[in-house]
Formats: sequence, C-alpha cells, structure tokens
Amino acid sequence: MSLAALRELVCRANLALLEGGLVTGTFGNASGLDREAGVMVIKPSGVPYADLTPARMVPVALATGKVLAGDLRPSSDTATHLELYRAFGCGGVAHAHSEVATACAQARVPIRCRGTTHADYFRGDVPVTRPLTAAEVEGDYERNTGLVIVETFAAGGPSADEVPAVLVASHGPFAWGADAMRAVEHARVLEQLARMDLAVRLLAPDAPAPAAWLVDKHYFRKHGRDAYYGQR
Amino acid sequence: MSLAALRELVCRANLALLEGGLVTGTFGNASGLDREAGVMVIKPSGVPYADLTPARMVPVALATGKVLAGDLRPSSDTATHLELYRAFGCGGVAHAHSEVATACAQARVPIRCRGTTHADYFRGDVPVTRPLTAAEVEGDYERNTGLVIVETFAAGGPSADEVPAVLVASHGPFAWGADAMRAVEHARVLEQLARMDLAVRLLAPDAPAPAAWLVDKHYFRKHGRDAYYGQR
Amino acid sequence: MSLAALRELVCRANLALLEGGLVTGTFGNASGLDREAGVMVIKPSGVPYADLTPARMVPVALATGKVLAGDLRPSSDTATHLELYRAFGCGGVAHAHSEVATACAQARVPIRCRGTTHADYFRGDVPVTRPLTAAEVEGDYERNTGLVIVETFAAGGPSADEVPAVLVASHGPFAWGADAMRAVEHARVLEQLARMDLAVRLLAPDAPAPAAWLVDKHYFRKHGRDAYYGQR
Amino acid sequence: MSLAALRELVCRANLALLEGGLVTGTFGNASGLDREAGVMVIKPSGVPYADLTPARMVPVALATGKVLAGDLRPSSDTATHLELYRAFGCGGVAHAHSEVATACAQARVPIRCRGTTHADYFRGDVPVTRPLTAAEVEGDYERNTGLVIVETFAAGGPSADEVPAVLVASHGPFAWGADAMRAVEHARVLEQLARMDLAVRLLAPDAPAPAAWLVDKHYFRKHGRDAYYGQR
Repeated sequence: MSLAALRELVCRANLALLEGGLVTGTFGNASGLDREAGVMVIKPSGVPYADLTPARMVPVALATGKVLAGDLRPSSDTATHLELYRAFGCGGVAHAHSEVATACAQARVPIRCRGTTHADYFRGDVPVTRPLTAAEVEGDYERNTGLVIVETFAAGGPSADEVPAVLVASHGPFAWGADAMRAVEHARVLEQLARMDLAVRLLAPDAPAPAAWLVDKHYFRKHGRDAYYGQR
Repeated sequence: MSLAALRELVCRANLALLEGGLVTGTFGNASGLDREAGVMVIKPSGVPYADLTPARMVPVALATGKVLAGDLRPSSDTATHLELYRAFGCGGVAHAHSEVATACAQARVPIRCRGTTHADYFRGDVPVTRPLTAAEVEGDYERNTGLVIVETFAAGGPSADEVPAVLVASHGPFAWGADAMRAVEHARVLEQLARMDLAVRLLAPDAPAPAAWLVDKHYFRKHGRDAYYGQR
Repeated sequence: MSLAALRELVCRANLALLEGGLVTGTFGNASGLDREAGVMVIKPSGVPYADLTPARMVPVALATGKVLAGDLRPSSDTATHLELYRAFGCGGVAHAHSEVATACAQARVPIRCRGTTHADYFRGDVPVTRPLTAAEVEGDYERNTGLVIVETFAAGGPSADEVPAVLVASHGPFAWGADAMRAVEHARVLEQLARMDLAVRLLAPDAPAPAAWLVDKHYFRKHGRDAYYGQR
Repeated sequence: MSLAALRELVCRANLALLEGGLVTGTFGNASGLDREAGVMVIKPSGVPYADLTPARMVPVALATGKVLAGDLRPSSDTATHLELYRAFGCGGVAHAHSEVATACAQARVPIRCRGTTHADYFRGDVPVTRPLTAAEVEGDYERNTGLVIVETFAAGGPSADEVPAVLVASHGPFAWGADAMRAVEHARVLEQLARMDLAVRLLAPDAPAPAAWLVDKHYFRKHGRDAYYGQR
C-alpha cells in the first residue's frame, strides 16, 4: 500500500471515530500500519477532527518512532500504538473515549461476554489492565501503557487476535484489527457491548454467562476456516 | 404480490432497521413472506446496509430453504426465520441487536408489560426462550433457534399473534408481524418498551403491574373486531 | 383566533411532539382550544406524523365532543383532553409517550422537584394519578382518564396552573399550557426533568429536596406579577 | 478585541451550548469578557436560541453591572457571571442545564475524577457548593450564587484555574475558561464526565480513584510549562 493510500485510510478511520460518537473535541486517535514498509501513520496531536486531511496524517517509523515526513507532531499516544504493533499481528489501532467503555475502564470492570452480539466479535471478556505504577507513569508513560496492554494478554486467556480490545485501568479503551477501519469498527462495537453489559448488570446482576459452545458458535461463524457468515 | 414488490418491501424494511437505530454494521435482518407463492425474501448475509438494494434481497423457498435466484447467500439466520413462518401466521420477521432489548435477552429477563404503551402492541410480557443445549447449538443451530422460539409460545400464555416478539436467551430479540415493515415496527417499539421497563426497574423494583382490564382495554382498542383506534 | 389559525397551530404542535422525540409511530397527540368559540382542535386518530396537515386536524365541540367538520375521526384520547379543558383554564393539551416520563407513570413515582430547572416550570412535584378502577376502564375510559387527572389536582397541593402536567398511573404523561405549543413545551421539559430525577435517584437516593424558598424564587422569577426573566 | 468581535464570539458560544445538547428552550447562557475594557457581553434574557444574533448580545460593565448598549435585558444570571469574572482570571463563563451534570448538582454529589479523560481537563473532582440560605436567595440571589461559587474555591483544594467548573447545589453546572468558547467546551466535557461518573457508580460503587501521579500526568500533559499535547 502506498503512503498516500495509508494516509487516506487512516484519515477516514479517524473521521469514523468522530462519526461513531466515540470521541469529542480532539480526544482519541486511530492509526494504520504498513508492516512491510515499517511505517505507521497516525492522527496529529491535538488537531480538531474538522481539520483532519490525509496530508496531515503523520508517518512514523515502526522501529524507532521517528517522524518520517511533515511538520506536525504525531498523537501523544503514538508510543502506545507502536508497542501494540510490535507485539500483536494487527494492522490498525484505535483509541476512543467512548462513554460507557471508558466508564468500565475507570470502574476497572471487564466488558463481559454476556451474549452472541459480543461473541460475534470478541471470543471472551474484554479485560482491564493493571494500573500503571508511579515509575511507569513518570517514566516513558505512553510506551509503558502499550507494554501493560501487551502484558495483559501475555497472562493467558484469549489472545489479542481473539479479543482485539482492552480497557486500560482509569484510562479507556484501545482496540485493534486488520487495518485502521477494522480497529475503529471494533472500538464502535465495544462501546455498544459496554452499554449492553451495563444494562445487563442493572437488570440482573447475577445473570448467567452464555455457554461456551454458544460463544464459540458465534465467534467461529464469523472467524477462521469454517466461517459461514457473509459472502464468499 | 410480485417478487419484485416483495424484494422492494423487504429492502425498505431492512433499511428501516438501520434508520431506527436497531442495528449497526451488518448486524440484524428482516424478511417478508409471500405465503401463497411459498417464497420468503431476506437480507443477504454480511452485506453492509449502505449496499442493500431490492435486487440484492435473496428469495428462498419456504418449504426447503433453497435459494431461488441470484448469487448472494441469504442471511445466516435464514433457517430461524423459516421456522417462524412455518409455525406462526405472520408475513414478516425482523431480528435486531437493539441495545436494551438485547440486554434483556442477555440478562434473561422478560420485557414486562408495565403500562399502556406496551399493551397497545403486546398483550402481555415479551418472554425469554430457554437457552439452547450444546446439541442444539452444535447441530442445526439457526433452525433450532427458531424451534426454541416456537416452543416458548407453545408452552401456553399469550399466543404469538398477541405477543409478536420474543427474546432468545443470551442472544437477542426477534419480532414478527403482518409484513416485513410491521415486523420492524414491532422490533422498534420493543426497544422502546425495553428502555421503559429498565427505567421502571430502576425507579421502583416492586411497581405493580397494570390491571388486566387496562391491558386488555388498550390491546383491544387497537386489535380485533371492536378496535376503535385509527381511521376506518 | 380563526379555525384555520388554530388548525395550523395544533398541527405545528403535533409535529413538535415528534421533533422533540416525545412520540414514535402514531403515539401521542396535542390539541388546542378556542375557548370563546367553544372549539377544540386535535390530531386525527392513528394518522402517522408524516401525513399530518392543518386541514387534517379535527375540530370538536368543547361542550358535546361532536366532530364539527371533516371525515377524519379525532384522537382516541379526545375525551381526556375535553375534560382537562373543562376543569382547567388551559388553552392547549399534549399527551406524550416519552421514555422516562412514561416509565415514571408506569412505576407510579412522581417526578420530584429536585432543583431549579424543575422549579422554572413546575412549582412542586409532578403527581401520579390513582389507577382507574375496572368500572372506569370498561365504561367511558378516555373521559374517566380526564376525570381522574382532575381529581388528582382537586386533592390539594399545587394547582393545575402551578404544575401543568401529570402522570396517569400505568399510562403516561399529559401536559397543558396557555396554548398547544406551550403544552408541548411542558411535555418536552417534563421528559428532561424525568431523566434528571432518575439520575438523581441513582446518584443519591436520599438527596435533600431544594428549600421551598429556592423553588419559589425560580418559579416566580418566571411566573406571575413579579417575574423578571425574559424581555418585557 | 473590539466589541463587535466579542459579541460575535459570545453569540457563537451560546449557539455551541445549543448544538452541544447542553441546553433546551431558553435555558442556559454564555458570556465573554474584555477585561481591559471592563466589558462583559452576555446572552439576552429569555430569547430563544434560534433568534440569537451578535447584535442581540448585551454588553454590561464589569464594575457596575450596567447595560452599556441596546434595549435588551441581559441574562437573569448576569450577576453570577460578573462575580466569577471579578474573582477568577477567566475570560468566558457558561451556564448549562445539561442532563447528568445538573442531576449531580441536584443530588449534591461532586463529579469525581475517576480517570484520565477527566484529568485531561480538570485537576480533581468538580465540587458542589453549599446550598444558599433563605437570606441569600431572597436578597441579591444571582450575585449570591456567584459569591457561593467563589467561596467554594476559597475553601482550599484545587484552584478555579485547575478545576474550571462547579455544581451549584440544587441548581446546575457553571464552567469557565480563557474565553467564551473554552467555557462552553468545559461545560460540554463536564456533561460527558458526569455521564461517565454516573456509569462508574453503577458499575462499581467502590471503584478506586486513579493515582495522583496519573491525574497529574494527564493534567500537565495538556496544561502549563511542560505540556506536550497538541502542536506548538
């Protein structure tokens, strides 16, 4: 993919964050990766969504974090995105401040898999990271945020491929996917799932989880070799 | 009704699902039936709502489930719709992933009839199915989902005519009606009723149900021989 | 006011119900009164909002309830509106099915005056009627609904002028005002107040009520002889 | 800044209150200050948002509260705004009736700093004032509202610069900032934070606060000498 095409895609993905109601003001950011070229493209820092254009998307070297072109500074969360690309096989990352997913991160409660809408996208609960230590915050904060996310998935349970999203404690949601638009789609679905899980908690705090076979049925209806959802 | 007219109606009904905020992405689906011709028309699987056209709606034989025309695969929930048409007298079916109705399905709590807004459409609580067994999920899953819905109404209580909607446990709402648009209307009202019932639970967990005479007054003001709502 | 002007106003008021998100489908209705002429104009029964025009608004005699012109049947709630005009000094009535105000009616909890936003419009809690008896429902139901509303205000407490709205138990909100548009404005504010009061209940079930002097300060800043809000 | 430019800015800020969903009807108001000229410009009282134009914004002397031009009366909350300008270093003030922030004011619970979205804007909880006494309400009510806000920040804790918003008990939110648009931005973010904090309370009443180092990291990423968010 050309750099121009990647900038175009990442710009559209950032606008999709806004249109999906997942961010306000200058909050949030989406990025995309050309893994072969070793180039990540990300939203510039603190620029209002109305002013975003493909040319203003900032290319950054995956290996070093160095800005490769232009005068604009990349998102302040750039180092977090880079760590996710280094550890996971994804091609896009999105960070939203959507209302209920952020509240779950603040409350430090996972977004539980309580039904098939969830299982269509995520093969299990969306976990919460541990809080960062004082040293991690006062040191290389944004990079350490990425490392704590990676650590969360290294602890076992579903992989970052199977559950392409996380809640950073006291902070908010990050999501990823095959490219920038899929990452934003995951962030959008995540907010919907967070709203549903909050409603489930209010309706029936002790409602049983769906059976594992139902979760896997829906997850594998859409993912993997035997998927039969959609057009071939 | 011609096949072209049915495709047109079903396409409009699917778009009404989207416009009503009842689905996002490629979630959800609506279908319509020409019972005389034995043909159901349904949304294609996994096609974004923006790309739906009448020509892309998929006709399927009611008796066999065989696709009757075109290259597109029908909704993965096709077999569920077919079972509902076989058991109930309806002409349209809609499956939504609307936020609070889905949460009720996940929490496995019925949408209770707590007022006249509910009774205008549904003559009693909207029930929850039993969860499917492992065998039912691993076997002919979508067909078994339909059979479990039918079983729920066979257990007694109001009929599928009087309460044209259900919550499939850990899954979400299905609604039906005289045609595809009426099915979608029922799905839309159902979400509104789910939101109201959640608010009632938060406001007064032990609020009394409306008297049976009030429920029947409103239900029969709009349905049946003595209805006096609307224009003649 | 000419009948044409009243029809125009009532049509606009009904559309304002829809635009305010207070009704869906064919739910709800607004009316206006020319007290001198003894004529009430109201929405036709069961006609979708998109099809409303001034000419389709139905004039009804205040004294007898007889339709005065046209082929359309008036709202099925006509008799309720008439009783309110007979008992109160208002010139407009609106009946909404807005989400949280309706939930309060279903839960049978008043919308409590918990702050100045409420006191700007209503000088005290918005009350809930008693439930109608079987005889009242099976008899002249819509008229009896109006009579039970009147009874609620006759019991003492703030007058129907000071609190121009009510929750009919297990049913929903009615609001009134100087004309049809003001009635709809009251219905719209009522929904906002219901949402705030629900949030207050969730945040602090035992939060203290505002002092009487604060309620009266805000109410009389906007109403009565010494009002100083707005332009003269 | 010319008076014309200030009127233009204040008019835009008031319209931003409406567009942000923070006010309905004629509720709410925003103002801006030219501190050098000693002139505050504010919304006229009780004029619908649709009728606002720059020429209708009312200039008022900071020192005396006297209207400096035109026939329109300034917002009834003018004296509150003036006290905030006198005590704080801000250049804009906004008063909203947004749903959940107002509910927090009515419930008398602070909007707690429970995450980084909050800390990006406010260095700590957004406090609630004490209720006004009968004498304060019956005397110079709007001025006393301003004085009670000032008193709240004089009590210690974060300064009015660090936490540019407050909840007036049983009333609603006021926010301020460098100019009228920033004040409205703070009011808009405040509503978002109130919604998140309500959700946190529902999800986990005892959720831990974020560590002080995390709050300060985010606050100072965007504010003060060492800020590194945004473009230089």
